[in-house]
Amino acid sequence: MSSEKFIVTTGPLPASRKMHVAGNLFPDIRVAMREIDLEPSSGEPPVRVYDTSGPYSDPAASIDISRGLPALRRSWIEARGDVEAYDGREIKPEDDGLKSDEQRKVAMFDRSNIRPLRGKPGTAVTQLAYARAGIVTPEMEYIAVRENLGRERLKEAAARDGESFGAAIPDYVTPEFVREEVARGRAIIPANINHPEIEPMIIGRNFLVKINANIGNSAVSSSVAEEVDKMVWSIRWGADTVMDLSTGRNIHTTREWILRNSPVPIGTVPIYQALEKVGGKAEDLTWEIYRDTLIEQAEQGVDYFTIHAGVRLPYIPLTAKRVTGIVSRGGSILAKWCLAHHKENFLYTHFEEICEIMKAYDVSFSLGDGLRPGSIADANDAAQFAELETLGELTQIAWKHDVQVMIEGPGHVPMHKIKANMDKQLAVCGEAPFYTLGPLTTDIAPGYDHITSGIGAAMIGWFGTAMLCYVTPKEHLGLPDRDDVKVGVVTYKIAAHAADLAKGHPAAQVRDDALSRARFEFRWRDQFNLSLDPETAEQYHDQTLPAEGAKLAHFCSMCGPKFCSMKISQEVRDYAKSGMAQMSQNFRDQGGEIFVPDTAAE
Amino acid sequence: MSSEKFIVTTGPLPASRKMHVAGNLFPDIRVAMREIDLEPSSGEPPVRVYDTSGPYSDPAASIDISRGLPALRRSWIEARGDVEAYDGREIKPEDDGLKSDEQRKVAMFDRSNIRPLRGKPGTAVTQLAYARAGIVTPEMEYIAVRENLGRERLKEAAARDGESFGAAIPDYVTPEFVREEVARGRAIIPANINHPEIEPMIIGRNFLVKINANIGNSAVSSSVAEEVDKMVWSIRWGADTVMDLSTGRNIHTTREWILRNSPVPIGTVPIYQALEKVGGKAEDLTWEIYRDTLIEQAEQGVDYFTIHAGVRLPYIPLTAKRVTGIVSRGGSILAKWCLAHHKENFLYTHFEEICEIMKAYDVSFSLGDGLRPGSIADANDAAQFAELETLGELTQIAWKHDVQVMIEGPGHVPMHKIKANMDKQLAVCGEAPFYTLGPLTTDIAPGYDHITSGIGAAMIGWFGTAMLCYVTPKEHLGLPDRDDVKVGVVTYKIAAHAADLAKGHPAAQVRDDALSRARFEFRWRDQFNLSLDPETAEQYHDQTLPAEGAKLAHFCSMCGPKFCSMKISQEVRDYAKSGMAQMSQNFRDQGGEIFVPDTAAE
Repeated sequence: MSSEKFIVTTGPLPASRKMHVAGNLFPDIRVAMREIDLEPSSGEPPVRVYDTSGPYSDPAASIDISRGLPALRRSWIEARGDVEAYDGREIKPEDDGLKSDEQRKVAMFDRSNIRPLRGKPGTAVTQLAYARAGIVTPEMEYIAVRENLGRERLKEAAARDGESFGAAIPDYVTPEFVREEVARGRAIIPANINHPEIEPMIIGRNFLVKINANIGNSAVSSSVAEEVDKMVWSIRWGADTVMDLSTGRNIHTTREWILRNSPVPIGTVPIYQALEKVGGKAEDLTWEIYRDTLIEQAEQGVDYFTIHAGVRLPYIPLTAKRVTGIVSRGGSILAKWCLAHHKENFLYTHFEEICEIMKAYDVSFSLGDGLRPGSIADANDAAQFAELETLGELTQIAWKHDVQVMIEGPGHVPMHKIKANMDKQLAVCGEAPFYTLGPLTTDIAPGYDHITSGIGAAMIGWFGTAMLCYVTPKEHLGLPDRDDVKVGVVTYKIAAHAADLAKGHPAAQVRDDALSRARFEFRWRDQFNLSLDPETAEQYHDQTLPAEGAKLAHFCSMCGPKFCSMKISQEVRDYAKSGMAQMSQNFRDQGGEIFVPDTAAE
Repeated sequence: MSSEKFIVTTGPLPASRKMHVAGNLFPDIRVAMREIDLEPSSGEPPVRVYDTSGPYSDPAASIDISRGLPALRRSWIEARGDVEAYDGREIKPEDDGLKSDEQRKVAMFDRSNIRPLRGKPGTAVTQLAYARAGIVTPEMEYIAVRENLGRERLKEAAARDGESFGAAIPDYVTPEFVREEVARGRAIIPANINHPEIEPMIIGRNFLVKINANIGNSAVSSSVAEEVDKMVWSIRWGADTVMDLSTGRNIHTTREWILRNSPVPIGTVPIYQALEKVGGKAEDLTWEIYRDTLIEQAEQGVDYFTIHAGVRLPYIPLTAKRVTGIVSRGGSILAKWCLAHHKENFLYTHFEEICEIMKAYDVSFSLGDGLRPGSIADANDAAQFAELETLGELTQIAWKHDVQVMIEGPGHVPMHKIKANMDKQLAVCGEAPFYTLGPLTTDIAPGYDHITSGIGAAMIGWFGTAMLCYVTPKEHLGLPDRDDVKVGVVTYKIAAHAADLAKGHPAAQVRDDALSRARFEFRWRDQFNLSLDPETAEQYHDQTLPAEGAKLAHFCSMCGPKFCSMKISQEVRDYAKSGMAQMSQNFRDQGGEIFVPDTAAE
């Protein structure tokens, strides 16, 4: 057996200090965020930013991948007194795609000190159940502190001028507000009781827009170590959740390494592993194999499952005339099963049994958009919306079982058709959070689909989508590597933040303003350090002006010293300081008219 | 003197054939476009695309930078009988930033066979004047054929379902429609009579959305050869116009090399060169120096001038409290001049004299947004809109002189404030075309501002903006190199095309559909060749699957052979071909209800 050498990126981002803010209701909680220190000459305080990078960017933390992260939430879960430890399901060779007598070629994470938990019989141990019972959990307070960036409530709310299309974003997030939003299903806290390592986060329209990064191997590419590295790398740049979409070898083992080392919620698509267990033959899938896979993954700690229960038999003919058919892996797999058996989708027919499993571990549904459009031509068609109607129906069933739900969305959608997606989802899915893949606003640019989709993602985030699933430059072409992961994450941070700004989120513009002030005052390092990717910004600047002194220069190579508008702007201000008062007086003396005839000779 | 070695990229794009379509009214015109050939197995015709790359991508053309491009329009211009050749202004050392006795270190383009033209006294030789006189020029027919991609009028118009916010995009563009749009000022044809080399194009809301690439040196960076190469490189990837924003050495000589070799309109900002002539001291600018610079550049053939005549003295105090002041080079230069002299902007006071010059050469105005917002905080403020009101006033004056006008726009604008910009510009500027820089939808991502602005550009293009000025990854950080130019151009082609799709432009979706069919049928090379950047798409694919056989594979490394949704989708269709008929019958037999109880036992 080869021992995987795990190499992950650690250390703080430039000028950043990890900090932790305590709770009030729960004084022991320590909410992670970071502060970016600015140059003393600026006279400005550090800028706090939301931070998904976990202990990896904390110099005070000691990282040992083989031991995993601290089980942050263990005491909170146990204090609720509604779970029991048990022996768990035995790991089978086929869980890693091995034949019965085949040896694993990769090391497994050492679980000798871990036993899975599940809810005591008859209980639903979900954040939704607690919220409906009026309970504010430590997770909820953690989230409130996190979403506020640790700010104290301001005496006066800052002026807000966004357009949120009817959302209800508060000036200040209280734990009670978090509870309310979860109770009404408008937000979810993905937090499997078997994933105690996570720093809690919330997905909902009235909170900061979140992003997801997809990782995972395929039969053709990648390894366990690469996938763990991608997870750590993706959260360093801002991924709020990560989906492990592995379809190749060692699915179980890879996932365990990721879960034990991930401070963010992890999502999966269980049908992939189920398909691997039947050797890739969709027709051979059974409810029993799938059910067993759900329990296997829930015991490990997966926080949300993408489940394509809306790919219903009668809808499949609606895809017959599509340009790109069914582009969802899970959707196509289930469509094949349905047609092979001439039966209704077993995920649909066994949906309540799935709910019974998920409520015992607090796994959230991500109701899959198996019939999403994979081309501009197919956008907003009958197949897509028929499935959405079913997802709305299934949302009500899940809520009946106190299982948390979010709804997945498209896809490929031209700009003028995007809002209809949001409006329809709000109407039919009871305001459950929307979680879209882009959408891509044109098909013509493989190699640049992070951009074609970043446009649609920003827009649909503005309209109310709660989480945006990223797309990398490799979309349609191959498995993303770590460079692609970074570009995808930064692009989607842009889309999410642009949406927060447009919605008028009270915390959003602080960073833009701080960076713009740094830019205007030629505090180059502050500008870089406040940006989403300080190293790239600095590297680009240094390509033409590498000398250290250039960091003090009041210009860059775009315009040079004589033409820098910001430099000249400063001179205009200095010049006008004395002159402005006189000009104002002149202006008033001339009657304060905007249009003043030029009486002076040239 | 060093002889610049000019190296530019020539040769066709993959699978592309340059073609030329003749006119009807003017049978001698040969409208350039290209066709992308698809694999014979597809059974599909070649796909025609709009092509800005000029003769450089035509294997039949012989390229000699030292001789320039053929003077395509010379005979059309002469046939109008309203221009005269003359000796032109003498080139002075200061035109290239040289002292009187200093030698040029770069070679000049050989103009020994070229004499500048100008309109005969009392004439306006502009496309606007001709349009208003009811004349359809060869340029107008060229444009009609080009915008239609050479299609014959279809017997029935294709179904169109865009949202164009009140635009009037025709199913088929006639030369008469072009004339009408130009006559009412809603579109411009930038085409200086001294730039006969251009392949005519149109900028207007009711035509394809266009993009501009900025090139030009600075005092810190670049050379004549690099700038000529950037121009050729930018149009290869799709730039519809190019602005030479040089601010360093050899401004005149660089521009001449670019103009003589550019098949697309060239824009400049004359105040830059004027500032160079006074050694960089804004206070020393005079109307006489500026006027002389306008004539110098008009004689060379510049097709549009950015002129910041809206930066009025009373508006400057409105920028005092801005976060990023005045971010326009020209705007800051003029603001400094105004305050230094305590006088109104001489571009404003001499505006009609500027019109007299421009009408004699058919140089179009790009009325500059000198007071555009350079940060989210400054978006849509009083300074910005005061200037826009003045630009509206100046538009009417220019039209009085038969001078073509487009209006420049922002900048940095959060998404929810973008539409207001379009609405206001339409209201106050008489529907003159809008030409925006982005806008950037957040400030927090230097290094990625092609993306932050691509989002805003796609949206404002959808709302009616006629041309989008690109932004590269180097924005705010340094002068773009050729790699940045390409990324900027491709990003803005995405934005413009996404806008065309959303507006329901009849020609737009052809390419998306052809590419998506190629994708679905695993015609990998067709997918690459139809994309905006075939080489990058292929390179990304080949990173993980380089073998030639992989180009026939029904999967890529994203999912591998067992999980490719498109492959499985094809299997579903094959499987269903026989089954579908039966299913349809079953469906109908059961009353055709969407919700069918599952009566079959599991």
